[in-house]
Amino acid sequence: MEFACNFALMLKNDLLLRAAKGQDVERAPVWLMRQAGRVLPEYRATRAKTKSFIEFVKNPELACEVTIQPVDILGVDAAIIFSDILVIPEAMGLPYQMIEAKGPWFEQTIKSKTDIDNLKIAEAGDLDYVMKALQLTKKELNNRVPLIGFAGAPWTLFAYMIEGSGSKTFSKAKQFLYTQPELSHQLLEKITLSTINYLKGQVAAGADILQLFDSWAGVLSEKMYYEFSLKYISKICDALSPLVPVTVFAKDAHYALKNIADTSCSSIGLDWTIDPKQARSQTSGKTLQGNADPCLLYANEKKIISETHAILNAFGKPRYICNLGHGLYPDIDKEKVKLFVQIVKDYKW
Amino acid sequence: MEFACNFALMLKNDLLLRAAKGQDVERAPVWLMRQAGRVLPEYRATRAKTKSFIEFVKNPELACEVTIQPVDILGVDAAIIFSDILVIPEAMGLPYQMIEAKGPWFEQTIKSKTDIDNLKIAEAGDLDYVMKALQLTKKELNNRVPLIGFAGAPWTLFAYMIEGSGSKTFSKAKQFLYTQPELSHQLLEKITLSTINYLKGQVAAGADILQLFDSWAGVLSEKMYYEFSLKYISKICDALSPLVPVTVFAKDAHYALKNIADTSCSSIGLDWTIDPKQARSQTSGKTLQGNADPCLLYANEKKIISETHAILNAFGKPRYICNLGHGLYPDIDKEKVKLFVQIVKDYKW
Repeated sequence: MEFACNFALMLKNDLLLRAAKGQDVERAPVWLMRQAGRVLPEYRATRAKTKSFIEFVKNPELACEVTIQPVDILGVDAAIIFSDILVIPEAMGLPYQMIEAKGPWFEQTIKSKTDIDNLKIAEAGDLDYVMKALQLTKKELNNRVPLIGFAGAPWTLFAYMIEGSGSKTFSKAKQFLYTQPELSHQLLEKITLSTINYLKGQVAAGADILQLFDSWAGVLSEKMYYEFSLKYISKICDALSPLVPVTVFAKDAHYALKNIADTSCSSIGLDWTIDPKQARSQTSGKTLQGNADPCLLYANEKKIISETHAILNAFGKPRYICNLGHGLYPDIDKEKVKLFVQIVKDYKW
Repeated sequence: MEFACNFALMLKNDLLLRAAKGQDVERAPVWLMRQAGRVLPEYRATRAKTKSFIEFVKNPELACEVTIQPVDILGVDAAIIFSDILVIPEAMGLPYQMIEAKGPWFEQTIKSKTDIDNLKIAEAGDLDYVMKALQLTKKELNNRVPLIGFAGAPWTLFAYMIEGSGSKTFSKAKQFLYTQPELSHQLLEKITLSTINYLKGQVAAGADILQLFDSWAGVLSEKMYYEFSLKYISKICDALSPLVPVTVFAKDAHYALKNIADTSCSSIGLDWTIDPKQARSQTSGKTLQGNADPCLLYANEKKIISETHAILNAFGKPRYICNLGHGLYPDIDKEKVKLFVQIVKDYKW
C-alpha cells in the first residue's frame, strides 16, 4: 500500500511514520497518549490562560503551544494535536461542557429519530479552529517530528451523545443499541461521515498520521462491537488510509484484535491487559502500539527501566510504536515521563 | 474432588451445586448477580425500612427478606445472601459509608505500614450479622434452593481500602502496588486471612457454595494480576474448596482465565466480553458461569430469547451456570428478568 505522506519526506524524524508503515527503523518511536496535558506544568500554565476547556480547545494558538510542549520537553518522536474527541458531536449540533473533575456533560442528548435528523453531517470547515491549530503546529514544528491527528471512534462518540456524560456502564447508550438498532445505525452513519470529513480536513491541514480512539469499546460484547463499532471504524480506515497511516486504539476490546487487523488500518493500539506476543499472533502485517500500564510511571527508576525493557523486548523492533496502554495520568511526575522516553531511545535490540 | 455439602442432599433443587461440581443436570441452573436488589420493587420497599445502606446490611431479618425475594418472585435456582463486599474492610477496622448515587466512601484510607498494622484480622464473629442473616435465610428457604455466600476478592477490597472510593482507574491503589509492593502484600495477606475466616463462618452458617467477586481485576496487567490478586484468590480457594464449591468471578480479567482455572475453584464467572468457546478451551474441568450482557434485558422479548438461546447453546449443558456477565442494572424491568429465567428453564439442549 502506498501512503501519500507528502510531508514525510521532509521530516527530520520520521520514525513514527516508518514504523506505522512497516518500514525499517533504527529504534522504536515513542510518544504518549495525553502527552499534551496536565502532566506538564507548562501545559497547566497555558491552560490557565482561558476560563473554559472548550474555549481552550477552540484557540488555535494555545492548542499549538501545548501540542509542541511535549516535543520540546519530553523529547517524544511525535506531536499529537491538542483537541478533544467531542468536537465532532458539537460540530454536528450537540454542544457540551467539560466539567472540572467530572468530565464531559451534554445538556441535550439524542433520544429520537427527530434528534438524529436534526444533526448535521459536519464538514471540515465546521471545525476550522482544529484545522488552524494543525496548520499552525505544522509550521511551528518545522518538520522536526510527525504530527498526529485524531478523532473519537463513532461508537465512543455515540455513547456520549446518548448517555450525555461519562459512565461506568454506558447502559443508556447500550439500551439504545438494543432497542433502536436502526436508529443507532443512522446516528453512527452520520457520525462516521462527519468523522471522515473531519479527518480528511486534518490531513489537508498537515496531519501525517491519524488515530481513532474507541475509548468505550470495552463495554460492548464482541458481536455488538462488530455491528455497531468496528463496521464504522473500518469505513473510516478505508476513506483515510489511502492518504495517511491510521491507528485504531480500541480500549479493552481484547476480543476484537484479529478483526481490527482485518481493517485497512496500519497500526493497532493496545491497552496494558493485552499480551504483546498474543497480539502479534493475531495482527499479522500491522504495526502495534502500546502498551505500558500508565501506573508504571509511579514506580521507581529501576522498576520503570526493567518493565519498559520487558515491553520493548516482547514487541520487538519492527512494526512497533512504544506508548502507554492509555493516556498519561495527570499526577505522574514529568521526570518519570522523560525517563520512559529516554529508556526507549536508549534501548538496543 | 469431594465436597462436604451437608445440606445439598436435602435440597429440593440442587441444580446449582451439581453444575458447580460437574455432575449431571437436567438443565442449566440460573441465577443473577444483584438479583437481591433494586430491580425488584419488593426490594425497594424493604430497603425503605432503614435509613442508611449499612444499617440495612447489618439487619439480619431484612437481609434475609431481600435474599429470598428473588427466589419467590423471579424463580431463580439459588439465593445469594444480601450483603456487601466492603463488610470485610469494616470488620478489619476501616469503616465506610454508602453514598447515594456515588457508591462507597471511606473516611480513612490505608497509607502506611502503621495503618496496615492497626488493622485487625477479622474473625467470623466480627461479622455476626452476616452469620445470623445466613442462618435465618437457610431456615426460611426451607431447602428450596442452595444459598450462595460471597466475599470480595482481596485485590478488589485492597483497591477500595487504598483509593477510598470507586474509581475508573484505581490509580492510587495501583500506585501503592508499584511503590510499596511489600506493604501491599502485607495488606493483601491480612485481607486474605480475614476473608478465609469470614467464608468459613459463612459455610458454617449455611452457605452451600461461595463466590469471590474480583470486580476490579480489569485495571491490572496480567503480571500484576497474578502477583497481587490471583495468588490470594488461590489461597482462599484452597482453604474453602474442601468445604463447598467456590466460584471465582474476575471481571475483565480476560487474560487470566487459564490461570484462574489452575486454582482449586470449581467454577469461573465470565463477563460478556468473553467468548464461551474460547473460555471452554482454556478452563478444562471447571464449570463456567455467565455471561449475558446485562443490557440485553433492555431488549424486546424476541431479542432476549434469541440471544439467551445463543448463549445456552454456546456453553452447552454440562458444567454451566446461566447468569449475566455482571450485576443486574437497577432500571431493568422485572418482567424481563423473569423472562430471562424462564427462557433458561424452558431451553431444550
